[in-house]
Amino acid sequence: MPNIIYIATSLDGYIADKNGDIDWLHDIEIPDGSDMGFGAHFDRIDALVMGRNTLDAVLGMDIEWPYSKPVFVLSNTMTAVPVGYEGKIFLLKGDVSEVVKQINDQGYNTLYIDGGVTIQHFLKADLIDEMIITTIPVLLGGGAPLFGALDAPLKFKAVKSEIFADAIVQNHFARVR
Amino acid sequence: MPNIIYIATSLDGYIADKNGDIDWLHDIEIPDGSDMGFGAHFDRIDALVMGRNTLDAVLGMDIEWPYSKPVFVLSNTMTAVPVGYEGKIFLLKGDVSEVVKQINDQGYNTLYIDGGVTIQHFLKADLIDEMIITTIPVLLGGGAPLFGALDAPLKFKAVKSEIFADAIVQNHFARVR
Repeated sequence: MPNIIYIATSLDGYIADKNGDIDWLHDIEIPDGSDMGFGAHFDRIDALVMGRNTLDAVLGMDIEWPYSKPVFVLSNTMTAVPVGYEGKIFLLKGDVSEVVKQINDQGYNTLYIDGGVTIQHFLKADLIDEMIITTIPVLLGGGAPLFGALDAPLKFKAVKSEIFADAIVQNHFARVR
Repeated sequence: MPNIIYIATSLDGYIADKNGDIDWLHDIEIPDGSDMGFGAHFDRIDALVMGRNTLDAVLGMDIEWPYSKPVFVLSNTMTAVPVGYEGKIFLLKGDVSEVVKQINDQGYNTLYIDGGVTIQHFLKADLIDEMIITTIPVLLGGGAPLFGALDAPLKFKAVKSEIFADAIVQNHFARVR
């Protein structure tokens, strides 16, 4: 029952720059129209798990709801699913291990864990099994880091590496337990 | 006249852990005895540039002096080359751009820039042309970061990626100016 990260960071490991901006994510055009494995990743998963910040970012994008699978939103303050998103968004709160158990109990086993805060909570609880990290080759010099503090080191192994558009490298890591 | 970094970091971008230790660098055995491109890198360079901390670490290793090429040590406080290292170690101080000019003027054009502090100074001055970064697949959760603050973002491109021992990924980046 793997929990998977699929995310892009700068070369120095940030998911947003000093001003909170993410426009640098799209600096490099992918000429062949490759989705850099996102479709294959999305096909694999049963559901998404994200935090309130990531949900708000997606809702604020003025695009159609992009997810064809259930999105579990971790929030201790939201009390209701936004109007129009019933059956798409499901609210959960509390300890991440307990949250994963609740989602797995509903039959969703392969989970896409998204959003900086949520990813850090999952890593702290050693609940991440795979990481697909796309490195946008820019040094930002500061910003919001993908990784945070841990109680103990976590070992992974690189299982795949691929370069896109002669510029972007995507590395796949799997947890070694 | 490229200045090149060849260094290993943890998955979360640290070159030493919270205690300053680097033993995790050698957690994964390379079964085929590969040097992960170090020999080819070293053949390419004319000289090394490192700081006082890195020099002290190398001298403290109780191994034979490992470098067959001139080592320029940046230090504002060292006044003499350690006894026995005349002709191997050369002291320089001051602004990194000026230091590079002085080294290039002596005919050393392809430089291996080593050590955390020195690398950060070089990046801040936009004096790094290539980075060969070997990612040891462990999340340490803290330590001494390879990358630091910058005045402005620096764009690179991924030019090569290779996996060693089914675990370690090495990514090559080149500066895009």
